[in-house]
Amino acid sequence: MNNSTQNITPRITLVGAGPGDADLITIKGIKALQTADVILYDALVNEELLDIAPAHSIKVYVGKRSGDQTHSQASINQLMVDYAFNYGHVVRLKGGDPFVFGRGFEEIEFAAQHNIPAQVVPGISSSIGVPELQQIPVTHRGLSESFWVVTGTTASGKISLDLIDAAKSRATVVVLMGIHKLAEITEVFKAEGKSNLPAAVIQSGTTANEKVAIATVDTIVNAVAEKNISSPALIVFGEVVALHPEFKSIKALYDTLA
Amino acid sequence: MNNSTQNITPRITLVGAGPGDADLITIKGIKALQTADVILYDALVNEELLDIAPAHSIKVYVGKRSGDQTHSQASINQLMVDYAFNYGHVVRLKGGDPFVFGRGFEEIEFAAQHNIPAQVVPGISSSIGVPELQQIPVTHRGLSESFWVVTGTTASGKISLDLIDAAKSRATVVVLMGIHKLAEITEVFKAEGKSNLPAAVIQSGTTANEKVAIATVDTIVNAVAEKNISSPALIVFGEVVALHPEFKSIKALYDTLA
Repeated sequence: MNNSTQNITPRITLVGAGPGDADLITIKGIKALQTADVILYDALVNEELLDIAPAHSIKVYVGKRSGDQTHSQASINQLMVDYAFNYGHVVRLKGGDPFVFGRGFEEIEFAAQHNIPAQVVPGISSSIGVPELQQIPVTHRGLSESFWVVTGTTASGKISLDLIDAAKSRATVVVLMGIHKLAEITEVFKAEGKSNLPAAVIQSGTTANEKVAIATVDTIVNAVAEKNISSPALIVFGEVVALHPEFKSIKALYDTLA
Repeated sequence: MNNSTQNITPRITLVGAGPGDADLITIKGIKALQTADVILYDALVNEELLDIAPAHSIKVYVGKRSGDQTHSQASINQLMVDYAFNYGHVVRLKGGDPFVFGRGFEEIEFAAQHNIPAQVVPGISSSIGVPELQQIPVTHRGLSESFWVVTGTTASGKISLDLIDAAKSRATVVVLMGIHKLAEITEVFKAEGKSNLPAAVIQSGTTANEKVAIATVDTIVNAVAEKNISSPALIVFGEVVALHPEFKSIKALYDTLA
């Protein structure tokens, strides 16, 4: 398999590109890109980052978009290994952080099965960084002693049981990839008597297309519809959302009604 | 208060320095440091990062270490504002991410009270990045659909009620600043019948002083003592810890006993 005539040393680096803003990648991520022979990149990666790689490097889009199963995880794994044997250093550039619902560990395992050295470079996870740049801290003294990050899209297609437990908790709850199930997810919180819990939805955080809806569990579905917010987006449930500047007007309304 | 004779424009940037490795800061963080007139930095920040700032910049250590309350949060807030009025751009350089138990939002609020523009630059949170660089993914298909990050040190000094709930959950549980209460925390998991749940403690992750103990809830206290692990350290509870290479020998032992 090894193209030994060209003295290829296969290796793989999974790099977290962060939530979207090209400046939110790490120095370590930049250094990996600078020595890339091949970049396999996902849909949510800022394509400006591709320019950091050497001119000779091959850039391959392997993004999975909703409904498009052209690039299954199995085929991405195989591409990654094949490119490494044939070209050398493969950078697997992934949105956010590779180990936060990124299936990154599966790629590391696949590389190991083929005896290819693989390492991972963390990225800013959208779960923390996107609310943060909207001035919503996932933790804050007096409001939240923990945060719980859950996927809205499980392998089975159903709502995660963890999300049902999260709705019962005092944690700030961040739901990734859950926008298509927003109404169903808010019902889970309503069933816990949390209709007035502050909630935010942020689309394309840290990019030029960023949109935000700040509301409560009861009103977030309407707020998202009004602002035409769609995927990719994350959802934040918790008292910390009340720290967002836009929440003040909502609170004023509630205080009037109370 | 404003030193107007020198045309000072006060502003504040909270920058997440990441878990320790200087290369784990973001490009955006580097850019902030390059225009810093003052850096107020914490105990867990890699001091190599201070060299990025201009030669004229003032570097002030404001770290809080266990038992040392020289720099209270109130005094840090005041220093930050005073330096901004007198010198211009203050970079508040914090370990990990400023909004993950970093009290960063309190600093943003204090700046706002003094009409000083403040922004935040996310950092790699130790909660995700430190396990990741030990090959422990906080999420993994079939093992974990969520992760829950809890502080081990609450304002009251007691174990967080959130941690007690987290021990009941299926989530990967990451405890920051909990090493001093490790025995007490493991009792919480034992009470849930989770004595054999894989557990890891990682000290000084991503630095030259990194140490790791891989064990189970039942054995982690001994493993930490054997390896002389102390603060700063984080704890990970969850099936994902079994993915760590060192866990295989532990599992082999269990399989023999079973």
